[in-house]
Amino acid sequence: MENRSTTHQNDVHFTPADRNSLYKTIFNRRDVRGQFKPDPIPDATLSRILLAAHHAPSVGFMQPWDFIIVTDPNVKRAVHTGFQQAHAEAAAMFTGEKQKVYRTLKLEGIMEAPVNICVTCDRDRTGPVVIGRTADKAMDLYSSVCAVQNLWLAARSEGLGVGWVSIIHPEVLRHALGIPDPIVPIAYLCIGTVSHFLAKPELETANWLPRLPLDELIHGNQWGDKHNPACAALKETIRKDSEQNRQGILPCSTLE
Amino acid sequence: MENRSTTHQNDVHFTPADRNSLYKTIFNRRDVRGQFKPDPIPDATLSRILLAAHHAPSVGFMQPWDFIIVTDPNVKRAVHTGFQQAHAEAAAMFTGEKQKVYRTLKLEGIMEAPVNICVTCDRDRTGPVVIGRTADKAMDLYSSVCAVQNLWLAARSEGLGVGWVSIIHPEVLRHALGIPDPIVPIAYLCIGTVSHFLAKPELETANWLPRLPLDELIHGNQWGDKHNPACAALKETIRKDSEQNRQGILPCSTLE
Repeated sequence: MENRSTTHQNDVHFTPADRNSLYKTIFNRRDVRGQFKPDPIPDATLSRILLAAHHAPSVGFMQPWDFIIVTDPNVKRAVHTGFQQAHAEAAAMFTGEKQKVYRTLKLEGIMEAPVNICVTCDRDRTGPVVIGRTADKAMDLYSSVCAVQNLWLAARSEGLGVGWVSIIHPEVLRHALGIPDPIVPIAYLCIGTVSHFLAKPELETANWLPRLPLDELIHGNQWGDKHNPACAALKETIRKDSEQNRQGILPCSTLE
Repeated sequence: MENRSTTHQNDVHFTPADRNSLYKTIFNRRDVRGQFKPDPIPDATLSRILLAAHHAPSVGFMQPWDFIIVTDPNVKRAVHTGFQQAHAEAAAMFTGEKQKVYRTLKLEGIMEAPVNICVTCDRDRTGPVVIGRTADKAMDLYSSVCAVQNLWLAARSEGLGVGWVSIIHPEVLRHALGIPDPIVPIAYLCIGTVSHFLAKPELETANWLPRLPLDELIHGNQWGDKHNPACAALKETIRKDSEQNRQGILPCSTLE
């Protein structure tokens, strides 16, 4: 029989300061495109953010991710060419004022960022039947996305910017990186130190779209029930917290 | 012209202690199924973890997520019935010893957890053309997954357990929660305080699958190039960090 002390997290405690560190990371994480500096990333830092990614939740403990570390300028250039092609196609999908604004946006930092990382999903990693993927086939893809988000947050806390380049056709990315068929590229990330982090998401600052009021995205027990009395007090709390957040106050800063 | 001090994050700094708080959260987050306690979750805490979810990255700043807060036992029961059906189907997909082990695993805490939250993705939220979703149509689904991961980490730092129930057919979940057609249910989460957090993922402890060695998941510049000299030092660092991690040592604990 196993000792309880080795099977339980007995010595792990989280203080309000711990919580504030996490919230600070979450609220100040940005999708970085235009502020990369060329400084190399120390292996010690890269190792830590990859370890964070590797400890994401995964369906059936499948750990379906791999990480292709791209530093070769020729490989980056092939990806960048793929971006430019998909970007030109995308621009043509917008009209009028939106198209004008779209063309002014910088949407990637492939060549400037010292390191690019492609996070993938190996759908066959542990055989055809996976615990938790039997009813929803997308679950393994979602696991790799969780790895991306862990990496992104870890990078922010290490002072590194991350930008997710999604404007490239998956088959073009696959070709540029030699990714074979059962493997799905999930995210192509540009990573590096930055001149600065922006206070707000660029598309919010550019008035492309506003930050949505969170309390309006809360439904009680059924989709569309936005006035369920069971959620009234929660929504009021969310409105207050959202207002504090707009003022840059961390949500645990008043707790001890 | 905007003031640089308002557009940049000038006063945001991360210390090694901040980083360790984040890594502690990431490494001690668990998928909780069997340890939920019935205590209610304070609105103040729920609000903070939802605010964390709402600050996930989203493609084109689309914020495609909604949150259905489920506390009604009748709604939970409908979801639980859907789980039981999908679980029985899944058990039949495994054979021999794997099937025996599968049947012993507790895979959800729907009725026991005081709060369940369904995180969704509204694919039509901002119209048919979305910046960053033009070449990869799955990007908005991935944004909602990033919201799930933010919520999960915030919950862990607040001492709350989260379990993702994926063994239910999406259309059954849709029916139980009245989710209309353009909205995609991404994650059904059970949330609550817990008797304890397990030291390791349950499927690792049950010898269902081992934790993979991270250094073997690293490729240099091209898929399959696992011996690229450009990654040799990084892999060595990863092996050392992984060994420290197995011993429960946080990766920034030796830094200051």
